[in-house]
Amino acid sequence: MGIVTLITDFGLTDGYVGIMHGVMHSICPNLTIVDLSHQVAPQDVRGAAYLLYAAYSYFPAGTVHCVVVDPGVGTSRRAIAVETSGRYFVVPDNGVLSYVLAREHLTAAVSLTNPRYHLSHVSRTFHGRDIFAPMTAHLACGVVLADLGEPVGQLVTFPAPGLSVQPGGILAGQVIHVDRFGNLITSIGRLLWHGDKLSLQPALPAPGKGTQACLLPPFVASKARIHVGGQCIQGIQSTYGDALPSEVLALVGSIGHLEIAVAGGSAAQALGQGVGAEVRLEVTR
Amino acid sequence: MGIVTLITDFGLTDGYVGIMHGVMHSICPNLTIVDLSHQVAPQDVRGAAYLLYAAYSYFPAGTVHCVVVDPGVGTSRRAIAVETSGRYFVVPDNGVLSYVLAREHLTAAVSLTNPRYHLSHVSRTFHGRDIFAPMTAHLACGVVLADLGEPVGQLVTFPAPGLSVQPGGILAGQVIHVDRFGNLITSIGRLLWHGDKLSLQPALPAPGKGTQACLLPPFVASKARIHVGGQCIQGIQSTYGDALPSEVLALVGSIGHLEIAVAGGSAAQALGQGVGAEVRLEVTR
Amino acid sequence: MGIVTLITDFGLTDGYVGIMHGVMHSICPNLTIVDLSHQVAPQDVRGAAYLLYAAYSYFPAGTVHCVVVDPGVGTSRRAIAVETSGRYFVVPDNGVLSYVLAREHLTAAVSLTNPRYHLSHVSRTFHGRDIFAPMTAHLACGVVLADLGEPVGQLVTFPAPGLSVQPGGILAGQVIHVDRFGNLITSIGRLLWHGDKLSLQPALPAPGKGTQACLLPPFVASKARIHVGGQCIQGIQSTYGDALPSEVLALVGSIGHLEIAVAGGSAAQALGQGVGAEVRLEVTR
Repeated sequence: MGIVTLITDFGLTDGYVGIMHGVMHSICPNLTIVDLSHQVAPQDVRGAAYLLYAAYSYFPAGTVHCVVVDPGVGTSRRAIAVETSGRYFVVPDNGVLSYVLAREHLTAAVSLTNPRYHLSHVSRTFHGRDIFAPMTAHLACGVVLADLGEPVGQLVTFPAPGLSVQPGGILAGQVIHVDRFGNLITSIGRLLWHGDKLSLQPALPAPGKGTQACLLPPFVASKARIHVGGQCIQGIQSTYGDALPSEVLALVGSIGHLEIAVAGGSAAQALGQGVGAEVRLEVTR
Repeated sequence: MGIVTLITDFGLTDGYVGIMHGVMHSICPNLTIVDLSHQVAPQDVRGAAYLLYAAYSYFPAGTVHCVVVDPGVGTSRRAIAVETSGRYFVVPDNGVLSYVLAREHLTAAVSLTNPRYHLSHVSRTFHGRDIFAPMTAHLACGVVLADLGEPVGQLVTFPAPGLSVQPGGILAGQVIHVDRFGNLITSIGRLLWHGDKLSLQPALPAPGKGTQACLLPPFVASKARIHVGGQCIQGIQSTYGDALPSEVLALVGSIGHLEIAVAGGSAAQALGQGVGAEVRLEVTR
Repeated sequence: MGIVTLITDFGLTDGYVGIMHGVMHSICPNLTIVDLSHQVAPQDVRGAAYLLYAAYSYFPAGTVHCVVVDPGVGTSRRAIAVETSGRYFVVPDNGVLSYVLAREHLTAAVSLTNPRYHLSHVSRTFHGRDIFAPMTAHLACGVVLADLGEPVGQLVTFPAPGLSVQPGGILAGQVIHVDRFGNLITSIGRLLWHGDKLSLQPALPAPGKGTQACLLPPFVASKARIHVGGQCIQGIQSTYGDALPSEVLALVGSIGHLEIAVAGGSAAQALGQGVGAEVRLEVTR
């Protein structure tokens, strides 16, 4: 029995997601379908890429992850299926796998061109229903990846900003996601607690470099300094509750990355910063 | 293992939908339940009728479709179960099947009066939980339709506007749905692409007439003219991306019907039109 | 095959709920997961307690109900699993079981301390994923309650207001929930219809007293008087449809409790009342 996850920007009002479930159950009746999010901002490929990155590793091997955030539907953009050591991804080839592929080893990729695994009529506006859903269900139900279409080479990706080390031992990263509360999630991670100390392993590779096994030995969380949007934040907290109302704070977020938050408010608004903003972490010993 | 779909106007905040799932799993543990939409506007029977029409054909034979958009709950309106060649519908008898029955052949209909398949206590305000959910689950789990209650004759329906041919070969239809983006979905369809040409088969029957097998041979999409709300739109596009921002455009929507949209905006607002508005399609050769 | 329900304040935008599904399916692949609500107001433990109370009894024996509305995450608050004659609850020990425990007999309670049933790394901000989801899945898949951690004694509860009888035979209760329409749901119930009469059985025990088997013999619904927020409402209706627009009315709500509503509006707003407001029911014969 296969497991499938879905990420779209369709919302839950108009029934489009349910139609995709119907197509998948028609092909593979015993499928378990998990809705990761259908509230991605319209056509926000980077937002979808982040959600997938935060979630995929919590699903069992063999899970097929389908993303339909697809500004290019009806154009010549490719639809692809990708395998990375036991995980599968069925997506438009528009960069939505950028964060996942920064961490996982790609073992195969094909173009979704085999009409045998499309619906019998393919529309020009709803490939989620006509191509992505049936391909996902067939893959989850035992069809092998190579049967879905021809192998493809280079995939579309955007730079997945990681960490770089600046003079003076300062670590530089970027905001990679703003959640619905306005929290700024950065590329600086993975941070792990050891009592009141933190260690840091790079979750995403440094731009242009390979992943380093262990970047930073444990440091005292309260002595770290974070620079973002002209502000300096003293210390990394372990929970949201550690701050005064409207105070800007830094903490270790749920995916283990450094996160900038405002207690009871929006850090994006308070700091006027968004995706791409530079964040620097200064550790003193 | 049965499949059930749900459409309600309950929203997802108050737990009512989850309670219906609980009732159904209590009766039929291995049921697969697909939530088509719970964001139907309160008591909008026509909106629910459209969502069901757009979705039902993508589910396997034997699926039980349950709709609880029920302004008449607690009054003498009937609750019914309907069969149409291998598909089942469990609904209040308020017209919510109007579009489906314009396309499908009704083979049996019963009133949901057999108390054996109600919950033991039936409230006057939540028949979704007390009548529709248990009836749906029993039907999906093997109880035969005729056991649910007495046969009923004429069902409540509203006119499902289709297509009519006017002098000069102009096709006239109506807006049958406005989606959450303000797109106007019309009764003119089903349109199919053949390169840059379109053919048209009636999806819904003409008012007062039988369905005609093939209404319109292929015509050049860019030469069509659409008249709606005092405006004339030149050409039918294949995707939303083909228009300039705020331009009104006509395109073939996801269910194959003619759709009026505004790039990055609301056609309903821009044109001041809604459900019931007349739309005319003029094809020149 | 186990059934699990989920109540959180995570919303459906950021993928947190889907991640919990992934963790649970990784542990127990054939689990059925029902999302009761993820739209609980942030940190509204009483709101979650009410939703659970309204829903839990409609699920089959053996169901594991998981609630993650957890203002104390990362502090020393306990995480617990509770059994009440065949039903299971996996929750933070913050009072969220108060209404359920007013009606059910607690048979066992343990602290969720056995690291064998946590994820391998436990964060300080997302115990839903790292503790509650895996504990829930293991319990649903056959691990016995006693294996999850050490027995605990007194649980945190808030008073679950029931009914009290005042001089003159007047029944006094409280508003225990305001739903998204602004309806005021009271602690006065369970009311059952007998034609145009109502009987009343206490659903929640009187404060400081045991539950009385049958509080009130049938009375004529139209002759009852309800006092709330300085207003007097004449009669208890059976449906929302029985009132004029903007009229304040009393009715028997879906869970069988007395409810105050405004036709087409918000009773909370119209009366300026909320959770905790006193409501009195006066029955004349």
